Amino acid sequence: MLNIGLLGFGVVGQGVYHQVCSRSDLAIRRILVRRSREEIEALAARDIREIVEDDSIHIVVEVMGGLHPAYEYICAALEAGKHVVTANKAVISAYYRELTELAVRKGVALRCTAAAGGGIPWLTTLERCRRMDTIHAIRGIMNGTTNYILDAMHRQGADFDAVLHKAQALGYAEADPAADIDGDDIRRKLVISANIAFGCVVPEEAVPTFGIRTISAADVAAFQAAGFACKLLGSARLTEQGMAARVEPTLVSEHSLEASVPENYNLISYDAALLGRQSFFGQGAGRQPTAANVVQDCLDILQGATGFYIRSMENVTVDNSGVMQRYYVRTPSRDAWLDGLAEETMGPGIITRPVSAGEMLTWARKQAGQDSSTFIAALDA
Amino acid sequence: MLNIGLLGFGVVGQGVYHQVCSRSDLAIRRILVRRSREEIEALAARDIREIVEDDSIHIVVEVMGGLHPAYEYICAALEAGKHVVTANKAVISAYYRELTELAVRKGVALRCTAAAGGGIPWLTTLERCRRMDTIHAIRGIMNGTTNYILDAMHRQGADFDAVLHKAQALGYAEADPAADIDGDDIRRKLVISANIAFGCVVPEEAVPTFGIRTISAADVAAFQAAGFACKLLGSARLTEQGMAARVEPTLVSEHSLEASVPENYNLISYDAALLGRQSFFGQGAGRQPTAANVVQDCLDILQGATGFYIRSMENVTVDNSGVMQRYYVRTPSRDAWLDGLAEETMGPGIITRPVSAGEMLTWARKQAGQDSSTFIAALDA
Repeated sequence: MLNIGLLGFGVVGQGVYHQVCSRSDLAIRRILVRRSREEIEALAARDIREIVEDDSIHIVVEVMGGLHPAYEYICAALEAGKHVVTANKAVISAYYRELTELAVRKGVALRCTAAAGGGIPWLTTLERCRRMDTIHAIRGIMNGTTNYILDAMHRQGADFDAVLHKAQALGYAEADPAADIDGDDIRRKLVISANIAFGCVVPEEAVPTFGIRTISAADVAAFQAAGFACKLLGSARLTEQGMAARVEPTLVSEHSLEASVPENYNLISYDAALLGRQSFFGQGAGRQPTAANVVQDCLDILQGATGFYIRSMENVTVDNSGVMQRYYVRTPSRDAWLDGLAEETMGPGIITRPVSAGEMLTWARKQAGQDSSTFIAALDA
Repeated sequence: MLNIGLLGFGVVGQGVYHQVCSRSDLAIRRILVRRSREEIEALAARDIREIVEDDSIHIVVEVMGGLHPAYEYICAALEAGKHVVTANKAVISAYYRELTELAVRKGVALRCTAAAGGGIPWLTTLERCRRMDTIHAIRGIMNGTTNYILDAMHRQGADFDAVLHKAQALGYAEADPAADIDGDDIRRKLVISANIAFGCVVPEEAVPTFGIRTISAADVAAFQAAGFACKLLGSARLTEQGMAARVEPTLVSEHSLEASVPENYNLISYDAALLGRQSFFGQGAGRQPTAANVVQDCLDILQGATGFYIRSMENVTVDNSGVMQRYYVRTPSRDAWLDGLAEETMGPGIITRPVSAGEMLTWARKQAGQDSSTFIAALDA
């Protein structure tokens, strides 16, 4: 049996607590909380040292979220020779090399399956796939909030703001939705996934990201009329230039798997040399699914897992200049560059001829700074 | 390093051979073949005893197919204390209890991940899911041949025979397609999946099965006009009556994940208490994907896997009487029972009011014996 020190008792922490309470092979020994609750009074710790200095604790489970003090606490736990399981994508994405190297050096396990894909066994499947195959590309719907919004806009013809407010009322979107709708949450999950899939270290800030806050009901109506659904996709692929990686709205065929992903579900895929395309669908967030992957990580440690999912950590350069694709662009202030690319119209926007994704995403970021209503979406080949 | 004795050198066997040849942790030591080939002359064995009596062989990989002598060879290998990996769904489905109990008794591993889902990590995911969750139901597209046929009929408006011939020409369908198009192949995969998902032993012959050999272009046109796609699904669910399990054509919404599964791909799902619905998409057959799951099983054994995926083996009764659903029925000879159920028409057929799936499948089998053109499909709730 392994004893757990739990850092945080929010939505996921409570899920982990209740799932572990029903098991005989894992036990919660201490819980670091700011304010205690009656339910866990006997286990409450106020200081991280009560956990990292407790020799009876084998695994520290970090579900506080945020960069600090999560990073310092994880480091302290690893330094103390404890295995660490975290659902914190921000800290893993930002301190990937530091944390994985520290775990390997200390001979303990560091696992973060719940950090990308919520309850989907995505990172563990990447780990298994790499045992006997070469992954060429990863891509997917990695954020439930934005999928819920886009799905509702498609089904109801509603406008972005109305759907966002409904999502917030249902608890599917945060009061401050920026990290979701601007794609930053997806970018972190994409970086962690790409690092494991390709054995590299992708610098998070180098991945261009364009979100969905400017999509309109008129855009969606035009996409539907042309047989497309719009999804916010993260994608990464090794190319001759380095790594093509980006987060951008993408028009997929209405007959594609991605188009069929409803509500707040996720669907993440890889293309591998032997296995071809495999895709994984499920809840990408939520108390019980996310907690379930935290518990799975603890069970893998119980069965002997150590170190990180992979050992290889090549530095890569993010470069989308070699990816040529058509784009839908709607902007009130077209310039000569865009006019030179325009091939046809679609609803309130235009369709470009194939253009470098790197070039378009750079232009779109500049354009969005000048006119905040600009929206772009890649056309899936 | 583990040494492998390979039984069979057909499509999958050759895939396993080439994948293992590129590894340093597994090696092919002997290959049982009827006729040798120059490529593997040095490894060829003519008699199973050359493999089961060879103390240097740790794992016997059986990819011959068929019930006999595969069953006897697997038993001999297990009795000799060797781990066994097989892609043979027929033998695992038919001798489930005998083989799993023998493996457990001998303290060796028996694994068959490639037997259900081809290259999809389906059975291993079921195994992992069961570590911390309760599976309520499984369902999916488990046969690439029939999905290819149905997909082509939907896309091209073609008739069944024309598409079947094209599938045979492409190698997607066997010269004798009966096991695929009548649902027997799916039934075996469903039985193995249900056994592992629910910890039971489902008697294969008790699972009612209705295939797609009588579906017509007119049926498909009517389904499409009503917003449905027809897929051949296997499903199993524990109920108060025992286990509701069956293989039947099913009309799913054109917006569902199942409807979006193209060509010869598979998509298999479970519903679990904590995780909710998760679905797994990929190639359900083919040399490299199937061989990849065989190699994964060998790697799991290398990492210490022993016994079978699960230990529990409850006897269950198959009973679909409690499942009430509407059906599409097209038959040239309607009887009073069917007339009493008919609620509306759909193209050349009728839609019934909700009826027990057990009752409908019993009627359909009898009716198909009297009039071989009869076709039925369940309406997905």
